[in-house]
Amino acid sequence: MTSQATKERLYLFDTTLRDGAQTNGIDFSLEDKIAICELLERVGVDYVEGGYPGANPTDSAFFEKKRTKKAAFTAFGMTKRAGRSVSNDPGLRLLLDAKSDAICYVAKSWDYHVKVALGTTNEENLEGIRQSVEAAVEAGKEALVDCEHFFDGYKANPDYALACAKVAYEAGARWVVLCDTNGGTLPHEVEEIVTTVIEHIPGDRLGIHAHNDTEQAVANSLAAVRAGVRQVQGTLNGLGERCGNANLTSLIPTLKLKPEYADRFEIGITDAALADLTNVSHVFDEMLNRAPDRHAPYVGASAFATKAGIHASALLKDPKTYEHVEPATVGNKRRVLVSDQAGKSNLLAELERLGIAVDKGDRRLDELLRVVKERESTGYAYEAADASFELLARRVLGEVPKFFDIKSFRVMVERRFNAIGELITVSEAVVKVEIEDRMLMSVAEGNGPVNALDIALRKDLGPYQPLIEDLELVDYKVRILNGGTGAVTRVLIESRDNGTGERWFTVGVSSNIVDASFQALVDSVVYLLIQKTRGEVRPIAATA
Amino acid sequence: MTSQATKERLYLFDTTLRDGAQTNGIDFSLEDKIAICELLERVGVDYVEGGYPGANPTDSAFFEKKRTKKAAFTAFGMTKRAGRSVSNDPGLRLLLDAKSDAICYVAKSWDYHVKVALGTTNEENLEGIRQSVEAAVEAGKEALVDCEHFFDGYKANPDYALACAKVAYEAGARWVVLCDTNGGTLPHEVEEIVTTVIEHIPGDRLGIHAHNDTEQAVANSLAAVRAGVRQVQGTLNGLGERCGNANLTSLIPTLKLKPEYADRFEIGITDAALADLTNVSHVFDEMLNRAPDRHAPYVGASAFATKAGIHASALLKDPKTYEHVEPATVGNKRRVLVSDQAGKSNLLAELERLGIAVDKGDRRLDELLRVVKERESTGYAYEAADASFELLARRVLGEVPKFFDIKSFRVMVERRFNAIGELITVSEAVVKVEIEDRMLMSVAEGNGPVNALDIALRKDLGPYQPLIEDLELVDYKVRILNGGTGAVTRVLIESRDNGTGERWFTVGVSSNIVDASFQALVDSVVYLLIQKTRGEVRPIAATA
Repeated sequence: MTSQATKERLYLFDTTLRDGAQTNGIDFSLEDKIAICELLERVGVDYVEGGYPGANPTDSAFFEKKRTKKAAFTAFGMTKRAGRSVSNDPGLRLLLDAKSDAICYVAKSWDYHVKVALGTTNEENLEGIRQSVEAAVEAGKEALVDCEHFFDGYKANPDYALACAKVAYEAGARWVVLCDTNGGTLPHEVEEIVTTVIEHIPGDRLGIHAHNDTEQAVANSLAAVRAGVRQVQGTLNGLGERCGNANLTSLIPTLKLKPEYADRFEIGITDAALADLTNVSHVFDEMLNRAPDRHAPYVGASAFATKAGIHASALLKDPKTYEHVEPATVGNKRRVLVSDQAGKSNLLAELERLGIAVDKGDRRLDELLRVVKERESTGYAYEAADASFELLARRVLGEVPKFFDIKSFRVMVERRFNAIGELITVSEAVVKVEIEDRMLMSVAEGNGPVNALDIALRKDLGPYQPLIEDLELVDYKVRILNGGTGAVTRVLIESRDNGTGERWFTVGVSSNIVDASFQALVDSVVYLLIQKTRGEVRPIAATA
Repeated sequence: MTSQATKERLYLFDTTLRDGAQTNGIDFSLEDKIAICELLERVGVDYVEGGYPGANPTDSAFFEKKRTKKAAFTAFGMTKRAGRSVSNDPGLRLLLDAKSDAICYVAKSWDYHVKVALGTTNEENLEGIRQSVEAAVEAGKEALVDCEHFFDGYKANPDYALACAKVAYEAGARWVVLCDTNGGTLPHEVEEIVTTVIEHIPGDRLGIHAHNDTEQAVANSLAAVRAGVRQVQGTLNGLGERCGNANLTSLIPTLKLKPEYADRFEIGITDAALADLTNVSHVFDEMLNRAPDRHAPYVGASAFATKAGIHASALLKDPKTYEHVEPATVGNKRRVLVSDQAGKSNLLAELERLGIAVDKGDRRLDELLRVVKERESTGYAYEAADASFELLARRVLGEVPKFFDIKSFRVMVERRFNAIGELITVSEAVVKVEIEDRMLMSVAEGNGPVNALDIALRKDLGPYQPLIEDLELVDYKVRILNGGTGAVTRVLIESRDNGTGERWFTVGVSSNIVDASFQALVDSVVYLLIQKTRGEVRPIAATA
């Protein structure tokens, strides 16, 4: 009825659990795979490649049952071995028996690799592809063939590369996937080669599998789509061997939001799933136990952040002219960074984002701006420390309850030989805190002075203790400003609430690193207490 | 004579110090800018855009003298204000007076922004561009014009966008730079629009300035080059506002190594500088106090890493068929093939660079290789700490005199109210050192624990005291590895000898930050003592 009906369908094939698992330092457990599979279904990809049954116990266990509800659950594996029949190849048997909807075979399509890596003939390899595809179809499964090294193979021997793709297509493969296995092919080459291939195999039977070795996996994938392929393979957050695979987290918004693609193609991702993408990307990084890339396209915390003061006021007048897409469409937010170049409009936008209602004409805004600039000139960096900024703003606006009052602290680090002659280093901290007229004193040992202080500070905060039990310090960065002795030290601390998963950053500045660290630690605790007590605790005294 | 003579020149314009400074969380000091400028000269870019004189005190100070030897030192700023004459615009005056070789003006080329952001007329804006360019040329400077929002502007009003570019060209701008300010333009659009612009302005007067908001800044830059532009703007490691600028660290190897570009273009980067690129990229990240991206194209630690699997044996047979470029060309390493032999040749090259003569067959090399690998696996980063590596090498090779022996240290930091009610923080350190059977004990106060330790350590080193009087700690960086509590802390210290001006880096690793700092401090002192006593002092005892 609408233009929807005339759009071509473009399919997304996710290989996070297979090619993504090749990433240096990544090692998925069965539980990880199950959780990631759910995340992929939440996104709405058409295919989930789950792994290589038979290659390791995890992947075999993962294919003991079908793990997807909507996406085609896909097993990866090699084509039939040379010199064996289909019925006499145990590897192929495992693939056919796996509880999958589809099989994605990897097949050599560069004659050099056929000879060197497989040690077989070009003809045997073609025959292996044909018989393997037929076996999958016979087993009632959809067959896909990843033509490994397709582009390099095509450059070396176009006829043979093409013959591999054609035999797969003619044997009944639903998809023939052109792989840039080494990742060195450039977009214009992809476009040229796909254009030639499409003379032999229809585009709605062709896929693209790109790697990021020249930082162009996304561009290569889109070049292939423009040249006619209708399946795109990639991974969440661009995970993958070496420099990663094509990043679905970047591709999906471009396909959904840029008219060139959105007007021509329909993909399986709903608008609601698109609006969930920033969250999915961050959750996935949490699963991988790594900090999300702040600068990631579309989903990074800085993807819609503006620093420059002159831009900020124009940005607020009409965000569309300064943003290539609307941040909310991908579940992200506009951020106007508060820095020493900031004007009042930056400040207002930031306060609004933090949910702090202030009238535009409120005189305390001028005071806040003055304090921010003054503190930044002494080394504070509020744009990197949201939570400290929020605290500062609330303090200037007279809103922060005085949960506790630090009376003093002391920390000692000693390196010496112990009684049995071992060289040891001991760190011990004492913190004295006053809460509602009670004096609480805690002592703790730690791995270092900051760790000892952190533990001592959070050991007994009286009535607030239950609220901070899930607090954890996850990162700690130190920078010396101005250089040299007597310089100022800036400490940035990243904290996490293990209950909610929320992360926040606090900053401390002092000529003394321990002092600076302690400021950031205290800010982190107070920030969490504010989050947890919003509307519940009555301020004891406003610190203005 | 050769094909070299027939190649077209392609220019690289670096904006790390200007657009890169817009990155969320980045805040360059004058010293940072000077150091980064040296790094950029090491790479060999044609233009270094140093900042915006007049916008802030750092940039103004940076332009008080010419900071480059080879590259064109470029100041960034706005064109003449509407309603003012060239001679009566203080901002323009600052630009013309800055000690730069070139001026890069930013000019609006989207009529909407002319109206909304500048509040002027289309004609006034054109006139401002023309007069500003002429003023630069008259002042004996090369003029460049960044046409802001060019691609979005072109889509909205092609005639006006083109008119802005043309007026800049006709007024004598050496380069008219087409900017994708919001970063949302796609490669095929860049190609189409550049192809049209080039009908009016020759390609060797056009540049491209791309942002990474769809993960295609590199692809957009290359698409523009293919369409005819001959200047590419970008930043080291892709630094820049939001998702970053076009990454020169990815672009340079592609332009130098991929035949499509290498056969057609000559760029100012030598093969030796290309082979230094991985190192430059990592040093820059160290300056920014952030972990290098392991998955970065070309220069990432994993860029040529293959996880053992089906590829491994074939890779060993012929790496070329599994790598899109030879890792050594960009100064990187193949990770699967790190055989002891390959590692040993790296080590030998490094020792030779440091002037340590060792025979290729020396068995202690195997021991050194083992120790380096073991220590790097626990967090040491010798790549960034030359002096500590030299000490380690000399120790394993049995060459370091034992100048002194640390018996113990103790440091205390206390925050409390003093007798007159002021909140103070006191840091005090005690260091016990044995030198030639004499026990020396020193105590010192400092701005913080590390400063106190540093002062106490260098207060009395007996006979060596005169040799270390010019030693100064100039920078101190801390990184937490693996994240979380109980994680390992790596400290990098930069020291300077104020007598000779020499700078060196040392590293310490420990779960305790004070311990790690102390290791790096001691390494720094010992390194200086070795430099000063070479051939003068007889080793007391070799530590093997």
